[in-house]
Amino acid sequence: MAEAETPNRSPEIRKDKIHNRWVLFSPARSRRPSDFKAKSNPQPNNQTECPFCAGHEHECAPEIFRVPADSINDWKIRVIQNLYPAVSRELDFQNPVSLVGDVAVSGFGFHDVVIESPVHSVNLSDLSPAQVGEVLLACKKRIEQLRSCDYIKYVQVFKNHGASAGASMSHSHSQMIALPIVPPTVSARLDSMMEYYKQTGKCSLCDIQPNELLIAESAHFISLVPFAATFAFEIWIIPRDHSSHFNEIDSEKAVDLGGLLKLMLLKMSLQLNNPPFNLLIHTSPFQDDPSNAPSTHWFLQIAPHLSGVGGFEIATGCYINPVFPEDAAKLLRDVRISL
Amino acid sequence: MAEAETPNRSPEIRKDKIHNRWVLFSPARSRRPSDFKAKSNPQPNNQTECPFCAGHEHECAPEIFRVPADSINDWKIRVIQNLYPAVSRELDFQNPVSLVGDVAVSGFGFHDVVIESPVHSVNLSDLSPAQVGEVLLACKKRIEQLRSCDYIKYVQVFKNHGASAGASMSHSHSQMIALPIVPPTVSARLDSMMEYYKQTGKCSLCDIQPNELLIAESAHFISLVPFAATFAFEIWIIPRDHSSHFNEIDSEKAVDLGGLLKLMLLKMSLQLNNPPFNLLIHTSPFQDDPSNAPSTHWFLQIAPHLSGVGGFEIATGCYINPVFPEDAAKLLRDVRISL
Repeated sequence: MAEAETPNRSPEIRKDKIHNRWVLFSPARSRRPSDFKAKSNPQPNNQTECPFCAGHEHECAPEIFRVPADSINDWKIRVIQNLYPAVSRELDFQNPVSLVGDVAVSGFGFHDVVIESPVHSVNLSDLSPAQVGEVLLACKKRIEQLRSCDYIKYVQVFKNHGASAGASMSHSHSQMIALPIVPPTVSARLDSMMEYYKQTGKCSLCDIQPNELLIAESAHFISLVPFAATFAFEIWIIPRDHSSHFNEIDSEKAVDLGGLLKLMLLKMSLQLNNPPFNLLIHTSPFQDDPSNAPSTHWFLQIAPHLSGVGGFEIATGCYINPVFPEDAAKLLRDVRISL
Repeated sequence: MAEAETPNRSPEIRKDKIHNRWVLFSPARSRRPSDFKAKSNPQPNNQTECPFCAGHEHECAPEIFRVPADSINDWKIRVIQNLYPAVSRELDFQNPVSLVGDVAVSGFGFHDVVIESPVHSVNLSDLSPAQVGEVLLACKKRIEQLRSCDYIKYVQVFKNHGASAGASMSHSHSQMIALPIVPPTVSARLDSMMEYYKQTGKCSLCDIQPNELLIAESAHFISLVPFAATFAFEIWIIPRDHSSHFNEIDSEKAVDLGGLLKLMLLKMSLQLNNPPFNLLIHTSPFQDDPSNAPSTHWFLQIAPHLSGVGGFEIATGCYINPVFPEDAAKLLRDVRISL
């Protein structure tokens, strides 16, 4: 049966040139690509009393801003501090990168939450393209505030949907962690993109030829399954125009991206039965070396969690993906959604 | 309450000098270190008809060897092919590293399984030190067979215990995948250990000073919680003598290691309520550059899974660990086990 849909697929080891890492594609382990579905996606805690819901603002850590700025009970988005931060905004602000024996820095940083809707049951993909755009612009605004802190080098925006993707609250939200270091995967990505630029004179994402990996396009963005996707049915959304930093996005592009992101989330949810997933914004460090500008290009990644991570992946950094990107892209292209 | 056990613990960002990556330590997110327990550890499939059990050998993929070699129904260990291999031992053997557009190689390799006991309900930690040593020697023997294939560059030995750690069979077993490439995390580790050697003239693991991170010692090995542990209660077992390749182990050291590994598994299981975990052997590539020999040192890693991996970890390669290594080491040291 699998052969009918995936002719001539032998195991392959593909190089992800953006991250400089290898992925094992192993169709022999798999069912048909169309058989992949999330078995279940338990939500973390379907509180009747959820602190992220409208009317419960006093149960949250302090608010940073809300959208619209002058709203009271009718807010649409709130950006707040995380009640259980992974880094501390109060810690040693004057000396946030103190080395302890050359191998530790104090855990200074900012860990914030973007509440994407006042209503508990609304998912990001339920919002209109313009509303998703507003969430993206709220992230942009907060990143630009964080940029004013000289000690912050990188901001990671991430969304965990479903308990097995790391979510501890079921009310739709994203998070961002601002760090005094450039994280290792980010450094590896910047180095790998620079290497491509040195070899070809081109930006690796400007130069991408999606062909059969393409899922959809909008005025300013394309969405595709990457050639060496780490996760089955992984999706990238890439700006057509070269841009190193996500926070360079303007209002028009944010609405355009909102529409394409909503479409991808709906297609993924329908094809894969509302799977747990992560949504990640891959951008560049604040004080990036200007010589990196021609080679760095921000993008969004949607990573469904259809299987767990085992010892092989932890030890080697090689992921095993049972679905070839060409097959995943075809299935996602073919999902019909009317927006 | 947490303060009583972990005085003066502020968030810290620590550098893992072996892997050249950062880990965030965030006690504010945590319960007391002693409160960490696996909530549940569902086993994958507790078959009444398990193909790994004695008497079901005909249901398995072909056997490679058994221990003792001349045993019939009284085997203790079997090394067999994986029925659903991630790489293919039959594929393009003559040209296993063919590049497709410079970014893909054929998925050639070997994916084998080590059945650690003929009895379904026996865990690795139930075996005697000598029996655990025999499992380690079976891994060594198979690695040395794989070394004879010129195209194989690296062998990863790994054990997944519990469904959420990636296990698909509950009968105790380990796996090994032999690859025609050196995986990215392995390259990063070798480079980072070389960097340490260049800076200090010493091997980073020979030079380790465990102090309050020490858990236990044996004649030839030490066990500790690493300074920048990726996972809460992660354990490393390190040979005292400098050795680049796991397969250099001899019978005496294998039994000694078997005893210390059994002790660590029992302590972890008792302290953390039989958590899902991965056991990994970190060794060096076969045709390693001889100039790497003074800086590379093999070791075992035990990685309990007490929480899932979320979007932040996937995007940045920075893990968030809520338990300081010093606290984890003290708790593990204090668990009393009589072997």
